[in-house]
Amino acid sequence: MFKKSAFLLAVFLLVASPVYAATPTTESLELSVNLVWVMLGAFLVFFMHAGFAMVESGFTRAKNSLNILMKNFITISVSSLLFFIVGYGLMFGTSVGSLVGSDGFLLSDVDDISFFVFQAMFVATCATIMSGAVAERMKLSSYILIVVAMTAVVYPVVGHWIWQGDGWLTSIGFSDFAGSTVVHLTGAVGALTVVLFLGPRIGKYHGKKVNVIPGHNIPIGALGVFILWLGWFGFNGGSTLAADPSLVPMVIGTTLLSTSAALVSSALYTKIRFKRVDASLTLNGVLAGLVGITAGCAEISLGGSILVGLVSGVLLVEGIRFLDTKLRIDDPVGAITVHGICGIWGTLAVGLFSTSNGLFFGGGFSQLFVQMIGIVAVIVWTMVTVWAFTFVLTRFSSIRVSEEEEIAGLDFAEHGSNAYELKEALLTDETIPVSDKLGLAERLNNLTTTEEKLSL
Amino acid sequence: MFKKSAFLLAVFLLVASPVYAATPTTESLELSVNLVWVMLGAFLVFFMHAGFAMVESGFTRAKNSLNILMKNFITISVSSLLFFIVGYGLMFGTSVGSLVGSDGFLLSDVDDISFFVFQAMFVATCATIMSGAVAERMKLSSYILIVVAMTAVVYPVVGHWIWQGDGWLTSIGFSDFAGSTVVHLTGAVGALTVVLFLGPRIGKYHGKKVNVIPGHNIPIGALGVFILWLGWFGFNGGSTLAADPSLVPMVIGTTLLSTSAALVSSALYTKIRFKRVDASLTLNGVLAGLVGITAGCAEISLGGSILVGLVSGVLLVEGIRFLDTKLRIDDPVGAITVHGICGIWGTLAVGLFSTSNGLFFGGGFSQLFVQMIGIVAVIVWTMVTVWAFTFVLTRFSSIRVSEEEEIAGLDFAEHGSNAYELKEALLTDETIPVSDKLGLAERLNNLTTTEEKLSL
Amino acid sequence: MFKKSAFLLAVFLLVASPVYAATPTTESLELSVNLVWVMLGAFLVFFMHAGFAMVESGFTRAKNSLNILMKNFITISVSSLLFFIVGYGLMFGTSVGSLVGSDGFLLSDVDDISFFVFQAMFVATCATIMSGAVAERMKLSSYILIVVAMTAVVYPVVGHWIWQGDGWLTSIGFSDFAGSTVVHLTGAVGALTVVLFLGPRIGKYHGKKVNVIPGHNIPIGALGVFILWLGWFGFNGGSTLAADPSLVPMVIGTTLLSTSAALVSSALYTKIRFKRVDASLTLNGVLAGLVGITAGCAEISLGGSILVGLVSGVLLVEGIRFLDTKLRIDDPVGAITVHGICGIWGTLAVGLFSTSNGLFFGGGFSQLFVQMIGIVAVIVWTMVTVWAFTFVLTRFSSIRVSEEEEIAGLDFAEHGSNAYELKEALLTDETIPVSDKLGLAERLNNLTTTEEKLSL
Repeated sequence: MFKKSAFLLAVFLLVASPVYAATPTTESLELSVNLVWVMLGAFLVFFMHAGFAMVESGFTRAKNSLNILMKNFITISVSSLLFFIVGYGLMFGTSVGSLVGSDGFLLSDVDDISFFVFQAMFVATCATIMSGAVAERMKLSSYILIVVAMTAVVYPVVGHWIWQGDGWLTSIGFSDFAGSTVVHLTGAVGALTVVLFLGPRIGKYHGKKVNVIPGHNIPIGALGVFILWLGWFGFNGGSTLAADPSLVPMVIGTTLLSTSAALVSSALYTKIRFKRVDASLTLNGVLAGLVGITAGCAEISLGGSILVGLVSGVLLVEGIRFLDTKLRIDDPVGAITVHGICGIWGTLAVGLFSTSNGLFFGGGFSQLFVQMIGIVAVIVWTMVTVWAFTFVLTRFSSIRVSEEEEIAGLDFAEHGSNAYELKEALLTDETIPVSDKLGLAERLNNLTTTEEKLSL
Repeated sequence: MFKKSAFLLAVFLLVASPVYAATPTTESLELSVNLVWVMLGAFLVFFMHAGFAMVESGFTRAKNSLNILMKNFITISVSSLLFFIVGYGLMFGTSVGSLVGSDGFLLSDVDDISFFVFQAMFVATCATIMSGAVAERMKLSSYILIVVAMTAVVYPVVGHWIWQGDGWLTSIGFSDFAGSTVVHLTGAVGALTVVLFLGPRIGKYHGKKVNVIPGHNIPIGALGVFILWLGWFGFNGGSTLAADPSLVPMVIGTTLLSTSAALVSSALYTKIRFKRVDASLTLNGVLAGLVGITAGCAEISLGGSILVGLVSGVLLVEGIRFLDTKLRIDDPVGAITVHGICGIWGTLAVGLFSTSNGLFFGGGFSQLFVQMIGIVAVIVWTMVTVWAFTFVLTRFSSIRVSEEEEIAGLDFAEHGSNAYELKEALLTDETIPVSDKLGLAERLNNLTTTEEKLSL
Repeated sequence: MFKKSAFLLAVFLLVASPVYAATPTTESLELSVNLVWVMLGAFLVFFMHAGFAMVESGFTRAKNSLNILMKNFITISVSSLLFFIVGYGLMFGTSVGSLVGSDGFLLSDVDDISFFVFQAMFVATCATIMSGAVAERMKLSSYILIVVAMTAVVYPVVGHWIWQGDGWLTSIGFSDFAGSTVVHLTGAVGALTVVLFLGPRIGKYHGKKVNVIPGHNIPIGALGVFILWLGWFGFNGGSTLAADPSLVPMVIGTTLLSTSAALVSSALYTKIRFKRVDASLTLNGVLAGLVGITAGCAEISLGGSILVGLVSGVLLVEGIRFLDTKLRIDDPVGAITVHGICGIWGTLAVGLFSTSNGLFFGGGFSQLFVQMIGIVAVIVWTMVTVWAFTFVLTRFSSIRVSEEEEIAGLDFAEHGSNAYELKEALLTDETIPVSDKLGLAERLNNLTTTEEKLSL
């Protein structure tokens, strides 16, 4: 009677692709259930970009909010398009010398589009790490060009080495399940390199003083951290590529416990060190715990993951402090420490805590040594290529906005408008009589409406 | 030992419904895996309402935030209840003359509740499109009545024509996979009709001047856009109704690439046209790309989806400009352009880019022609019914708040309170000595607490 | 050609756990599809913590935002770690006298890690209910200690009674499908007990006056409500523990309709009672509808769920009013009413509306009576244990911040910083000429940057 069957039929008749098996087999069902799992993972990783955008916007100043939001949106878009056009081929195409892929550009002859979709979400994650580190001072146009280089070449090559199956790091046994090195370290090294070109924000360092430039909206930043934690269950969990009951629960369990431990350790450590629970460092501690367990989430025990997380949380606090005050590298949101230092730690943790061959599980130093080789190789490759590319860019024009634009805010300078219009929110003092309130509202309203914007 | 089995047993004994097959078969497993996929889709579409609420709140003024949030919450609730009571029957019940369904009211004799749940999420999407276009000036009560009309009658009839299987548009071959026309065009035409009754906001047009009334919180609006993008993977992907490996990955892939392309094209186009990357138009570009690919996501190639998206992004910018400055239709969040103009474009795109029968794939003009018939039919039906209903409404009372209420803000006028209390956030200037800060805080605190609210 | 197969192989070789069945069977596939469903549920319940954090932050004052965010993050972390160490064993271990579990600590000999992960998300939900009720005045350190007690002992014991299978409340037929009592009532009673120790916020009650202390950011609170609603589909839906087509759609359908009805009834009821649709009560009405259907979502009909929701929405309004003005219990976000009163209502509703044995379905009073026993038992147990623990705590030191700290805000007092820096957002008045704007921006910028923070 109800025409869902007709609806389904209509759906199938419409589409050019081969029709779904009328009689399901265990093989077709396995494809389906794995598809659902990988798509769920892809959606969650996609949502991480909302998390990055909120963290980066909330932890920087209001006058640069639009700009950083635009950078995040453009990153996911440009990197998805480039990964379709060239990146997937370089990463997963037939290997040339175990160094780089050579076919599959524009996904030609690629069957598994779901694998492409899942991997495409990862590319943007790597690139967007930079957007936080270069915040509040980098030109939008220069940023986009570096995103192009990162997502079209730098990241896919690293991915080929480690995740394609024939890469040279795979062949020596390097292990990075969900990307502490592939995604996070690569992104962080790219970020560091560009930051060295950029220099610190105006006012960050003043003689011997190191100024704190506080974020403007920590609640939305905290929401971003929650979104990232959620998304990471897809990042690590989806990397199994199959709804495997013997693997997935462990991956999710280690991800949950490592992160919980890192949050606790960064909260406690800041309490001990600074006599208060520092909110922004504790929120970054969550991300530290997530990056720290990413490489080993499938081969570290639940107990081991707690140790990995505890270390991540402390490393985060000291790492940010070291970069900020000793090296005087201005990283507005702590991205280099979170993704770089904790990325290295997470990669080494496999060599220490892997239940199959980690040092603490009787596996000796061999896996740890291989992990070190991979780390060094990725750092060298990323730093050299990003340095070269950025150097060429700077020969054409500055990659940094002018001093006046930086002071006025990038929102105004690059986008001609503002992230907030809160005048009216100030009228909410309830001690103002209603009559005055109407008057005030009207006056302010007229101010807004009698002006004309040139642009539209 | 651990009593999960007992727990499961307890679960099953408690419930009245038939017990889940003890020995799974490939048929029961197929039902299960499709169930998970459709539920995932339903949850994501549900979450789109959070996205709409944030976009509409962020892109309008602070003084109307509560009101627009309430409108969004009421829309999802009222439409879910009405779809249960009457809408599902009108949409998917036994067809009377290929025009409207005639049974299944209150879901009597309906077996597939998961299909109801998924479709219920769609209804609210259609209705909520209006809430953005009529923002900042429409009475809450009038808005609710129009939502009732839209979700109880207008939308289910369109849905019957196109998605029930026996509808007259289905029978002539009209193709709208996930609802560029069914959901988005219907919602946009309804919105346009009501906006023509309402007129522009006070201060929007001033003689020849067209004033921009900027949104008050773009970061939260941008979060809303991310949430909508995420939700749309469920909107388009779930519309397959099955975890079909030959269909789902293409649908998700085209959705991702079209949207990415639309974002890039609207960013670039605003850069060329206005000398800056306009943030709010670029964010709307994302939604344009999503609406644009919704009809054809299952039958357009990945490359084709990029072209569809590129066009969507440019159409969005020119569409908003045309409505705003030429037609002088005041649509605070650009909803009519996003869902209407891009909804038409998306529906036509099937006739152009469908790999089975699109014009550019050798299919000639026939599909394109059918698509045009469907577009015209839906526009006429929606405009006539919504016009008639709104006309009757206006005979009883104005559907617009008074001028004083509009100036004071709908939050104050309709809800007696405000969306923000940010006085204290202004105390955060760290140059104020702690002692003064305590004093100031106390003084402000007393102001708040010594007053009494009448209402509670 | 493309090496996904090699990638998969590499993945499997890396991991120590047993390899996924090479040839899928219907039994292995059933495990997989149920795994995906339960993981989806777990992720959604995890995300509820973002919802709680936003609701609690948005509905309280700006000066306490960081503190409440920290409390939410610490709750999920501490409770996950404790549930791993001790809670899971007490809850699901071999029963001692139908009262408490006795093994499975540190998950030793526990096979089903996915069940642990799902249940771990629930624990934190119970604990975090308190964070809203005690907001704006409780010491962070005292709060953490009470979370430890709640998640390590109080909640697991209740869970054992009702969900382990051998518990005494299970044996007498007590029915609480997804936790109206186990999670929500337990959390609310714990919250109430601590609030009785704490007393109201400064300025809340002034002689006979009951002051309203409005929330500072309702849009972000509304987003939190949407996130909670979304997450609840996983909370109720995932509690089936299986992707069962005969059970899941009903659970999701009742959850959707009950909540929709509760929103409508609380909106209408506030309109009738206070002459306006109260935004914060209506938003709380959503949560009331969710808590109300949680116990019976699997055994109440769709129509019944609407009745349950309608009652929940009205109960919420009167409950908050009663606690706030009659009992003069200061619960900043209404958590005790939402989770306690509606938790009781939801538990009783099973005895009234259950299609198998509810009073209104010819089942007589027996189920209703059993439900009452369970409610009383959980109230007594939770109140006694939390009272005893809190009493001991207060012997060592106050659990409340000092009056000065409360006035200055807990963000400043406990974390030494602020949630917002909105000075610059006030520069967005477009009537200020650009030249002045640059000047102003620079001046403010210098104010920020020439100071030095002591802490870092």
